[in-house]
Amino acid sequence: MRQAFIIGLDFGTASARGVLMDAESGHQRAVAVHAYRHGVISGSLPNGRKIPRDYVLQDPQDYVEALEVILRKLASGLEVVAIGIGCTACSPLLAYGDGVALLNDFHDEPHAYVKLWKHSAAQRYADAISAQGGEFLDDFGGRVSGEWMLPKALEIKNEAPVLWNKAERFIEAGDWIVWQLTAREARSQDFACFKAQFRPEVGYPSHIVPGLAARLSDPLPVGSPAGTMTEAWCSRTGVIGRPVVAVASIDSHVVLPAVGAIRGGAFVGALGTSAGFLALSDDYRRLPCGLEGAGFGAALPNVWCCEAGQAAFGDMLTWFVEAFPLAPDLAANFSKYNAAAAEMRPQQSGMLALDWFGGNRIPSADTTLSGLLVGLRIGSTGVGIYRSLVESLCFGTRLILELTEDGGVSIDDVILTSGLAHSNTFLVSVMADVLGRKVFVPRIENPTAVGAAIHGAVAGGVAANFFDGNQRFGAKSRNSFEPDLGRHAQYEVLYSQYKNLVANRELVGVMHRLYSASLNV
Amino acid sequence: MRQAFIIGLDFGTASARGVLMDAESGHQRAVAVHAYRHGVISGSLPNGRKIPRDYVLQDPQDYVEALEVILRKLASGLEVVAIGIGCTACSPLLAYGDGVALLNDFHDEPHAYVKLWKHSAAQRYADAISAQGGEFLDDFGGRVSGEWMLPKALEIKNEAPVLWNKAERFIEAGDWIVWQLTAREARSQDFACFKAQFRPEVGYPSHIVPGLAARLSDPLPVGSPAGTMTEAWCSRTGVIGRPVVAVASIDSHVVLPAVGAIRGGAFVGALGTSAGFLALSDDYRRLPCGLEGAGFGAALPNVWCCEAGQAAFGDMLTWFVEAFPLAPDLAANFSKYNAAAAEMRPQQSGMLALDWFGGNRIPSADTTLSGLLVGLRIGSTGVGIYRSLVESLCFGTRLILELTEDGGVSIDDVILTSGLAHSNTFLVSVMADVLGRKVFVPRIENPTAVGAAIHGAVAGGVAANFFDGNQRFGAKSRNSFEPDLGRHAQYEVLYSQYKNLVANRELVGVMHRLYSASLNV
Repeated sequence: MRQAFIIGLDFGTASARGVLMDAESGHQRAVAVHAYRHGVISGSLPNGRKIPRDYVLQDPQDYVEALEVILRKLASGLEVVAIGIGCTACSPLLAYGDGVALLNDFHDEPHAYVKLWKHSAAQRYADAISAQGGEFLDDFGGRVSGEWMLPKALEIKNEAPVLWNKAERFIEAGDWIVWQLTAREARSQDFACFKAQFRPEVGYPSHIVPGLAARLSDPLPVGSPAGTMTEAWCSRTGVIGRPVVAVASIDSHVVLPAVGAIRGGAFVGALGTSAGFLALSDDYRRLPCGLEGAGFGAALPNVWCCEAGQAAFGDMLTWFVEAFPLAPDLAANFSKYNAAAAEMRPQQSGMLALDWFGGNRIPSADTTLSGLLVGLRIGSTGVGIYRSLVESLCFGTRLILELTEDGGVSIDDVILTSGLAHSNTFLVSVMADVLGRKVFVPRIENPTAVGAAIHGAVAGGVAANFFDGNQRFGAKSRNSFEPDLGRHAQYEVLYSQYKNLVANRELVGVMHRLYSASLNV
Repeated sequence: MRQAFIIGLDFGTASARGVLMDAESGHQRAVAVHAYRHGVISGSLPNGRKIPRDYVLQDPQDYVEALEVILRKLASGLEVVAIGIGCTACSPLLAYGDGVALLNDFHDEPHAYVKLWKHSAAQRYADAISAQGGEFLDDFGGRVSGEWMLPKALEIKNEAPVLWNKAERFIEAGDWIVWQLTAREARSQDFACFKAQFRPEVGYPSHIVPGLAARLSDPLPVGSPAGTMTEAWCSRTGVIGRPVVAVASIDSHVVLPAVGAIRGGAFVGALGTSAGFLALSDDYRRLPCGLEGAGFGAALPNVWCCEAGQAAFGDMLTWFVEAFPLAPDLAANFSKYNAAAAEMRPQQSGMLALDWFGGNRIPSADTTLSGLLVGLRIGSTGVGIYRSLVESLCFGTRLILELTEDGGVSIDDVILTSGLAHSNTFLVSVMADVLGRKVFVPRIENPTAVGAAIHGAVAGGVAANFFDGNQRFGAKSRNSFEPDLGRHAQYEVLYSQYKNLVANRELVGVMHRLYSASLNV
């Protein structure tokens, strides 16, 4: 029998990554990364035309180029049976009825580009939608984010009506990539539920943006086959066979089966530049207060998935060590700070930080809030400040975990993944101490791409379901970090003060006024 | 006619400084500095015996050595007509009835040393005295500082009763130095009023520490002759003539006539490691709320003098630039930070600081409070933080100035002096902008020692009074810094937020708990 492979593709913000896995053994055989030709488009379009400061765009043709390069590198001449795709979201674009992007004909028009997830110019439309309210926001804390589908649709409809009228489709980049690969429009419930407030029993909240419903289509559950890769794509890449392509998934969700988070009770933290948290639950009453959104069966079948996050995470630590370096290169810099900070004891520095360097997501959903340091004395040290920043990140995570459990979602498995979970074991050990729980870091390379491959395996019948897919292709083991109960008790004192700062309304008022003052100069 | 000189002596914390001035022309002719042999004694006595952490002592014999060295260097073979002395306070010691320090016989006994002003072990006695209260605290906001005379007396009486019983005198170091020089005990009303709550019409509050009154003596007004320098001292130093020695004065007060602050309406900031402020007033109703103390005719004749201060000032900036250096030596480091910070506009950084790195004196008188930074974002810079720290120092000064005026003391002349006033013109220009007033920096070298020389001149009849002394020996000109009204308006926004932070009681609670937690580890 010929050897068969599966492929997972992870379309991130700056580049795409693919992993080739042996369908039988589950081993990773090859990895390929391709940076987008135009990267993240902000400030001006590729032709030099200026765009507003809060526009963050992408060229969809860059995805197609990455797709081709990666598939050819990984699998030219190999038999591939299934492909799965994870992608940033909400990152929608306008398309014609045949899947061709409007950008092909409108390269001078910013609204024809992919509006990348962090494009923030649609916030005022989001505010208007939230103010209007409605049942469709019940699982989203009553508010819609400016990053999501409905405000981005309203933005285009209002600000580029000509384009809007020409467009027959408004579609997530991940769904659009699947469409390119299979020549079938097959959208994902994961995108639809979390980013467009779709609910299987109700559909889209189509009354919010007149004409939007006609530009969408009903989505399929994750793990469904979207179609097979077209012959054209097979010949273009040298891939043998006609691999089944799964419906796409949000990149932060697609990782779940790769790290073993497939049951209610799992709490997964992806600790990168920012941090994203997913709490899985079998029983669910209402969205825990302060959390951002929840969907049933959308991220994984038959389970509720609640979302939350910290706006700044690794970037805050990187900012500090780069602003006040102890060593010329970043890795050595972090390693010196971590070693010195590990020598200190909790409470010793007398300092406490608020980790709101990128604003606050939980519990306030307010991007204009800011970071804080208190307890500064003559004699405070840079290392003490660094340690306070690390602790504040862990306090922020603990707040999210506590809100989750207080909201009725009980957690029995804390899993940390992504960059910092592997590169900063000092942070992970502080996390265990602050949470007072054992935390796990799965041992796996390229977890997001592997998760996408498992989606492909399920869709293509290589795996019977996500449990089977996890067993065969997911992490085989994990490192565990036990909390030190003495340090946990010391952190209680600091954490209670952290919560006092979070609850300090006058302080929030000061932050607001500082922020708006900074815009006026 | 032979040329005649006057001498001013400034006994500081680490060293003494003397200035020789031409009695006729008023020119400074020579300067001499002598560091104390034992410096500041903390941690252990010179014999190695450990002492508690909050003990800060000095050996009075070091003053005598400095006195001899400086007088010989400045004036051996010259005719000196008057000497004035400024000294740290409250820095008292025990003595026999003939002026000999008890330390001569009790070198192993910490309580026989000078208890330097910043000796803080008597705080609990101060708290007890404040709790008991009394009319004698009316001009001190109802509380006595742990640095002052009464609690330091109680401390010795309770903790070293044998010494206390042997001692016939408890006396400020400045008064003791005058005694050594003249062989006459002639105390100063300046020390007595501000540090021992003496009032001419009432006397000392002798009921607080039984037995203390017998160890004190009634003080004389500043500008009074204490006596003449003894023949023994003249022959020991080579000084010709029998110079009149003035009663001593607090070092921070003695500077006033040197910088031209001799009338009601003057507000003098001595910007050093910490900052001290004196507000002079002709009419006075009650101590402005939050200020620390006031006395009539004590610092200068016929004028009220109100005291206040900022616990951390230059040391906070030095801490920052040394913790996060831009250049290897301190001067270059400051000059780089100042140049870069001057390029920024108010409000631009979005940051705001509280300058409580050494606790807060005004308005809270709470050493356990701490510094704060808010408005931190990814992208904040070290220079932005530095600028926020400079601004916070100016906001702290403005708060003191406003409390002073709100309390009925009107100010028409803001004078800045000491280290930072000369070395950090960026800070002085921010100060003018923040205050929205013209501020003056007198052009004068060794202002404290010159002020002491003016006291000598008045006592010795060289000058008719302090006005005349100021005209002849004080600063001849001053630099002025005009406020920029545009920047002043921008600072209004930040200053109002600064006041919000000052008034934030929950934040103070967080600081208290962080401070006590830091003591527990």
